[in-house]
Formats: sequence, structure tokens, C-alpha cells
Amino acid sequence: MQAGERYAIGIDYGSNSVRCLIVDCFDGHEAGVSVWNYRGGEAGVYLSQNNPHIARQCPVDFIDGLAAVVPAAVTAAVESTSAFAVEKIAGIGVDFTGSTPLPVDEKLQPLAFQERFAENLNAKAWMWKDHSSAAEADFITKKAKEMRPQYLKKCGGTYSSEWLFSKMLHCLNVDPEVFKASYIWLEMADYIPALLCGINSVADLKVNICAAGHKAMYNDEWGGFPDVEFMSALAPELGEIRKRMPQKAYTADNMAGRLCAEWAAKLGLPSGIPVAVGSLDAHLGAVGAGVGNGRMVKIIGTSVCDVMASKPEVEVPDIPGVCGIVEGSIMPGVKGIEAGQTAVGDIFNWFVGKVCGGDASLFGKLTEEAAALKPAQSGLLALDWENGNRCILTDARLTGLIMGLTLQTTQAEIYRCLLEATAFGARRILDRLEEYGVEVGEVIACGGIADKNPLFMQIYADVLGRPMLVSASNQTCALGAAMMGMLAAGVYPDVPSAQAGICAFKDRVYRPVPSAKVIYDELYKLYCELHDSFGVAGTSFDHASLMKRLLDLRSN
Amino acid sequence: MQAGERYAIGIDYGSNSVRCLIVDCFDGHEAGVSVWNYRGGEAGVYLSQNNPHIARQCPVDFIDGLAAVVPAAVTAAVESTSAFAVEKIAGIGVDFTGSTPLPVDEKLQPLAFQERFAENLNAKAWMWKDHSSAAEADFITKKAKEMRPQYLKKCGGTYSSEWLFSKMLHCLNVDPEVFKASYIWLEMADYIPALLCGINSVADLKVNICAAGHKAMYNDEWGGFPDVEFMSALAPELGEIRKRMPQKAYTADNMAGRLCAEWAAKLGLPSGIPVAVGSLDAHLGAVGAGVGNGRMVKIIGTSVCDVMASKPEVEVPDIPGVCGIVEGSIMPGVKGIEAGQTAVGDIFNWFVGKVCGGDASLFGKLTEEAAALKPAQSGLLALDWENGNRCILTDARLTGLIMGLTLQTTQAEIYRCLLEATAFGARRILDRLEEYGVEVGEVIACGGIADKNPLFMQIYADVLGRPMLVSASNQTCALGAAMMGMLAAGVYPDVPSAQAGICAFKDRVYRPVPSAKVIYDELYKLYCELHDSFGVAGTSFDHASLMKRLLDLRSN
Repeated sequence: MQAGERYAIGIDYGSNSVRCLIVDCFDGHEAGVSVWNYRGGEAGVYLSQNNPHIARQCPVDFIDGLAAVVPAAVTAAVESTSAFAVEKIAGIGVDFTGSTPLPVDEKLQPLAFQERFAENLNAKAWMWKDHSSAAEADFITKKAKEMRPQYLKKCGGTYSSEWLFSKMLHCLNVDPEVFKASYIWLEMADYIPALLCGINSVADLKVNICAAGHKAMYNDEWGGFPDVEFMSALAPELGEIRKRMPQKAYTADNMAGRLCAEWAAKLGLPSGIPVAVGSLDAHLGAVGAGVGNGRMVKIIGTSVCDVMASKPEVEVPDIPGVCGIVEGSIMPGVKGIEAGQTAVGDIFNWFVGKVCGGDASLFGKLTEEAAALKPAQSGLLALDWENGNRCILTDARLTGLIMGLTLQTTQAEIYRCLLEATAFGARRILDRLEEYGVEVGEVIACGGIADKNPLFMQIYADVLGRPMLVSASNQTCALGAAMMGMLAAGVYPDVPSAQAGICAFKDRVYRPVPSAKVIYDELYKLYCELHDSFGVAGTSFDHASLMKRLLDLRSN
Repeated sequence: MQAGERYAIGIDYGSNSVRCLIVDCFDGHEAGVSVWNYRGGEAGVYLSQNNPHIARQCPVDFIDGLAAVVPAAVTAAVESTSAFAVEKIAGIGVDFTGSTPLPVDEKLQPLAFQERFAENLNAKAWMWKDHSSAAEADFITKKAKEMRPQYLKKCGGTYSSEWLFSKMLHCLNVDPEVFKASYIWLEMADYIPALLCGINSVADLKVNICAAGHKAMYNDEWGGFPDVEFMSALAPELGEIRKRMPQKAYTADNMAGRLCAEWAAKLGLPSGIPVAVGSLDAHLGAVGAGVGNGRMVKIIGTSVCDVMASKPEVEVPDIPGVCGIVEGSIMPGVKGIEAGQTAVGDIFNWFVGKVCGGDASLFGKLTEEAAALKPAQSGLLALDWENGNRCILTDARLTGLIMGLTLQTTQAEIYRCLLEATAFGARRILDRLEEYGVEVGEVIACGGIADKNPLFMQIYADVLGRPMLVSASNQTCALGAAMMGMLAAGVYPDVPSAQAGICAFKDRVYRPVPSAKVIYDELYKLYCELHDSFGVAGTSFDHASLMKRLLDLRSN
């Protein structure tokens, strides 16, 4: 193989937009890219006036986006790269946020397309950050503790309100009509490859082990998805759906099918191109960023997903509070470890946009002002729980807190303290991993913030006490998806070979500054006090001195 | 006496402006008013880049303001009221914020006027909300506990960083040159009457018992200001100044002197008009609002001062955490009880101006949106300590806290939660007074917020569980000052007689709404948990459930 000989398409569905990347299979050269913003709701998210925990998305956006973004990327590739031609496309890969499940009928058609459900938020896709199903998550956790404790051990000890079965059960509880109309619920990461391949029956469907394992308690150890007895104990209706669900889930290097004639025509591509099994965005982002060898990949966006691939020789135990440990979720044969934070960029967006009422220019101004501050100078400390806490508390009913406020407190100080709070949250996850024997070396960051916000990166290096690298590609999720397209097409034999050809880092490495690290170590202790006090039952701290200890740190 | 026969002038020095009111002695008719905004610093306040606790003010602003605001009010009175003439002015009264002391030389001239100190913040007036002297306040409290425990019992058990001796001692510690150049330190409430009367020696000076008693541990029981031995134990240099301080302090119905020829000419008034002894703004505001008979007056501005006058027949005990109990500080013969909150309007101004980056129009918008919210609907809870806590914790080193934040949290929700937090802080003070046998009936509010913000008033009625009245005058401090001018001139025999002639309330009374009060009672319990957890050593609460209990209140 040589440059310009074969290409792959990666399609990456994020929270607010879908992007398409066309990559040279030889060296990862990015021949064409296009982004399409969702049009429904608020930036693609449908909110409810009555319930702040609801966040839904419309499949129309995903399908319209697909039909627009791939031809646009092809056009860009044709214009920029003379060697490129659609006939050279070897494979297509897809990733999606998750757990973002969609209720579908027996033909795998979205219920949202039925006229009776056209305006019904419950018939749309339930976005990963939808937290309306907290009570159901508690119920599932309780039932699993009683009946199938092994199910919980692979997902951090608690089943999340963000995950598939919590959402299905909540739908059954609040909108049984939608629930009864659903044949199964499909992760969007499975729906899109099925759509591209024209698959319209469960028998022909290949669902991905990444979402199944991390969000739906799938494990080959116990024969796939949770058994019918357990599901029926949650609700008889769930037991019925379980019987219709696929028996087996696949790693993303498998072929889900081949591009069907209808979608080939819509996209302007030859039909028959291999389409890989889908995957969650973060996991393919990690692949595209170069995960492996003790490196943690942080996909930094509205939320953060931490992904590690175990070394094959290390036995990974169950780790409480870490979201998931699933063999094959990143690459075949090794355990994928997933952790993360429910809101990171979202917190900054909320503060700058919703609290300060500002836009991108205010973001730039605050970043500049915050960069001029020293650690602890603001006297502020925050808990980064504006969207609950995924790891290590696995509790959606936690909320954000800011302390140390004075009449002199500025926007930039609060902004920086929110940056720091997310870094402290990140450190809690790393500490937990290391406590259980998973050593974390360098951290590879990807996502827009990693690229655009050196302040964020330096704070993370100082707080985490580790070098922070930045992936050379700005599109690691789409790149990872394209790599799965290559693997499904047999261009490379395995993930490490593909990474060796394609992954690279930017020159700038953020290293911990010792003087800052010393102060952040102290602030982190205070963060942990607040964290455990408000997050862990049965803890007790002398908060009467906490504000003063913050002021003391500020004075020093 | 009849209408249009005699007038009095009240001069009210606030945090950012000075106002002058000309009042008919017969019925309180306001013949003329004028306001003059300070020009130095930020709205009259000089801040420091290096120390966020510093807040100073320049005597030039006060003197320029005096020379401008009185003639302007006279002009307004001449234009609006045909009966008015300057020859009919019976007396002049003055109030000032406090403790706002000014270092002066032997001739009572501000050190700030000496060229060598022109740019020195330490030679200016140390504004009431200057908190740079926290360490000195702790030291004075400690020494008083050891040597003179009786001193502390009248001022809530703790000597504040806002008060005279903390500031003097801090000046000695950080800028001994300024300190050594000072002959004594004068409260601005004493400086202005002395200036008007041309008094230039301590021998001729009549200082006010209101500031002396509430801010400087003055009490006739132990012979006036703290004794030389105690002061020398704080620092030998303070002992020296103590020897030069006046022996006796006076109630504000006394005459400080008569308007001197120089200032009569500047103001366009006849010389010789009686000028009353000064007083703190809040106490005269309470007089002007109609304090007495179990009514509490809340002067609501950037901060809040609570003032009550004991019934002569009730024995008022020492009340821990209440700022001061001083006989004669409001009117002769009864005990004045002062409590308060270091920041109320300042917190809203900070949030809307500094955090939201908004102006008066945003204030209006947020007030409207916040009024549409129900109690507990936001899921937010805050501690109102952005400027420390004066009562009941007497601790300047406490800071603000907001919890319950989510990605959906709006500006209006935070704004309302800050309103509520100050109301909860107000309730803690009332609860403490009643615990010690001081019954609080109606609350009379005065100040701009009372007049302009019905949402604020209703929340306070609901949280305090008491009717909230609004003083008819928008200028109760200036009105109270004018009343002291009348008393100094002998127009009325005592304060109650003057109040009977002059004080009135607006028609609109805010009464507690039972359904709101029930919810606020629950929220107040959570506030008290946070308050005691972060404010009182040795307390212990299960905060792990606190965020969830807030969410539960929100759901109900």
C-alpha cells in the first residue's frame, strides 16, 4: 500500500453535530472533512420545560446530517487531493455518543417517524446526558445487587441513569404507549450502520460490544445481555423485549454489512463498501488518538470520556466507581476501561453563556484573564457536578457547588475555578485507577478544548501531575471510525498496526510545573473533603475551617 | 408650630453618595433634596490591587459633596416650597456610615491633606466594609477576653475587623508612619459636625455615643472608651492615643456646636444654626423610619443594618453574635440594639454587575424572571457571606457559597437564590434576638431596595414570617438626621414626640404567604445546616444527602 491508494470514511456523531472525515489508509492524511450542525431543538438537543433532566435528539437530524455531511466531505477530498476518488474508498466506520438509544419497530424504523409520535419527546433518541431516569437507575442497581451482583462489577458498582435499561424502564413508567410500540431499542451507534447497510431485521443486525458492554451489562461471561429472568424482574415488559434483542455483540473491527444501493446513491458512493460495526465515540476517539501502553486518552468535549486499553498481561480487577471494563470495547482481545465526567466543556459553556450571558469572544477574554491568575489566587473552590457525577460516585442527583465567593470575585476567577474543579474530578478518577493497580502514564488529550485552550491543558498537567499530549488529529473520533472502516475492509490486520500507520501527536507537550503542582496538591485535598462530604454518605469533616484554609492558601 | 414655620436639614453620608434633605419640622414634609455622588475611586471607594479586603474613601469627596449638596437642596426647597427660607432653618443633623474612621492631626485636620500622604490609602478614611484588619480584630478579641471580658459582651462577643481599633492597630502594623502622624482617629460621623462648626481641638469636640458604643467599646459603665491599660496592652502606641481621646460621648439629640461662619458662607446659610452630634446612618435611619414598640427597622442598602430600640421596661441581656447593645445609641434612655448583614444589595450588585456583566436593565429583567419562580424551584441554596458574616457569626473570613447548580441553572435562578440567602441570614438574626427575649413584631424596611423591589420584600415577609412595612420616606437616614437637628435646636422635647409628628408608612404592606412560608421553613433548615457546618466549629452534618434533599424540595 502507498499514499493515495486507498481511503476510508469515518463518520462521527457528536452531541451537537456530525462530522465526516476521509482518510488516507496509508498515513492518515486527512483528505476531506465536513461538519453538519443538528437543526432541531437547541443545537440538536430537545429540552423540556417541565423537567430539566430531559435531553432528547431527533433521528431526522442524524439522517439529514448523514446525507449532507458525507457528500460534502467527498467534495472536499476531490478538491484537495488529486489522488482521491470515491472508487478508492475501502471502508466506512461510524461512531456515536452513548448511551443514546432510540425506540424502533420490528423493521428497525424509528418510532419518531410514526405520525402519532411525531411530537413526542419519548419517541426520539434519548441523549446520553438525559438524566430523567434516575429513579429507574436506582431500581436497576438495587435489583442487580440482589439478583445478579456480577452485572454491576463491570460497570463501577452502580447502573447509571444515562444507560439503556434505565431509559427503557423510565419510558415504560411514564409513556407506556411509546414503550409498547417499540420492538427493541437501538443504540444510535448501531442504528446508523444498519441504516447505511439497509438492514431491517434484528436477525441481520450486528450490534456493537462497546455500547452493549459499557451501557447495557452485556458480557460473554454470562451469555450476552442480562438474562430474561433478571429483565423480567425489572418489568415483565422488559423481559419481553429482552427475548427480541440480539444474542451476540461484535467488536468494531467487524463488518456490520455493506453499503446498500439506496444510501450509496444518496451519498454518491459505490454500493457494497464494507461498513464497520459501530462504536461509542469516545472509544474510537481513543483508538484514533493512540490509546495503549499505559496511555490514557481523554476525549474532552461537552463531557469527558477517559479511555484506557489494558495491557494484555495485566489482570484488571473490578474497580468501584469506574464506569466500565469491557473486553473488546476498544480493540479485540484487551479490556477497555472507560471512565469519565458527565460535564466539562458543558460547565464552561453554561457559565460563560448562561450565567455570564456571553459568547465566543467572552470565552477568549476570560481565558486570557484566567491565565494571568495563579493557582489558589481566586480563593475559590468548586465541585464539578453541574450534570451529576459519573465517576467515581456514579450519582446523577449531585449538583454543582462553588465556594469562596467574595464581592471581588470576577468572571475570570469563577471560570478558572470551574476549569480547576473539572481537573480535580479528573484526578479523582486517576487516583482510583491507580489504587486498583492500573497505572496511568501520559495522558493524550483530544477534542476542541485540548487544541484551543492551553490554559485548560496546563491546569490539567499541573493537577494530574502527568505530561499531557495532544493528538495530532483534531478529529480523533472520526479518525478512529475511519480506522475501523479500514479494519472491517481488511486493510490492516489489527488496531496496533493501524495506529502505527496513522496516529501522531502535536509537538507541544504540557508538563507539570512543580510550583503549581504543590499548590494544586493542597487545593485537591480541600476538593476531596468537599467531594466526600457532599458525595459519600457517612463522612464527616470540619467545614468550619474550610473557607479559612482556602483564604490561607490564597494568602500564601 | 405650624407647617412652613420651621425647617431642619439632614445630611446623610452613604457608601457611594451624600444626600441632603430639608424637612418641615411640623409634619415631615420634604421641601428639598439633593444627592451628590462621590467622585474618587470606584463610586467613591478606593480599592487595592494587592489586597481585596481594602476599601478606603477620600475626605475630599465628603467635603466637596457637603459644599455641593446642601446648596442644591436649598435651591430645590426654594423652588418647590414658597414658605421656605434659609432663615427658617432651626437645626442641622448629620449621619455617616461606620465604623469609618479617619486619621487626623492635633487640629483635627485629615492626614490625607498632607502632601506626603496624598496618595496613601492608609491616610484616607477606612470605610466600614474594609476588612483588611481581620488579624488585629482577632487579637483585640483575644486580649479583651483575657483582660476585659465585659467589653465584648456589649458587642456580640467578638470585636470586628470593621471597627475603629482593629483599623487603627492594622495601620500601626502596616504603615507606622501614618499612624504616628495621627493625633486621634475620628469617626466620619464626628468629623463632619466638627467641620461644620469649625471645631479644631479635641477639647471642643463632642463625639457620638452611637459609633463610640457600637464600634469602639465605649460604655459609661466602665468610664467611656476602653482604659489606657487595656489599650496599651494592644500596643503602647494605642495607649498613647487613648490618652488624647475624648472622655465622654453624647447622644445625637445634643448640640455639637453651631454652624461656623466659613461653612455658613459656603452653604449659603445663616451662621449659628445648631448642629447636632453625629450618628451612624442606620441608627438615624431607624429613628426616621419609626423604630420603637417592638418594631425592627431594616435599613436595606449595599449592606443591611437591623436596629431595634428596647422597651424601657424590658431588661435586655447581652446577646452573643449581635453586634451591639448600647444605651442611647438611638435615643436617650433606651438601649439601642444593632445587628446586621455585611452585604445584601452588594451581593446582588456583584452578581448582576460583576458576574453577569449586566446593568440596571438586566436587574429589572432578572427581577421579573425571578418573581415568576416558586420557592425551592431553582434547587439552589446559598450562603450570603460574600463579605463575611457580621451577625451572628461575627467572622469576616467567611465567604459565599452556592450549591445546587446544574447546566440548566439560569441567571434569574441564581439571583433569586441570593435574595433568599440574605433573607435566611436575616432570619437567623431574628431567631437569635427572640431566643434572648427580645420580641420582634413588624419589620419596617427602608432604603432603595425596600421601595423598588417587591420581590425582595415578599421573599423577606415569607422567610421572616412577619409583615414588612415600608417607610413613607425614601430618605429615612437623612430624615432621622434632620430630626436630630430639630432636637438639638429644641424644636421637639424627645424622639417619640418628633416621630409622632414626622414618621409615616406606605400603604403597601407585605404579608407572609402561608404556602411560601412552609417551603421556606424547610429551605431555612437546610440553610442552617450549611450555615452551622461552614460557620460554627465542632458541628457535624450529613451533607451527603443535602443536594438530594434540595432536589426533593424542588420536585415537591
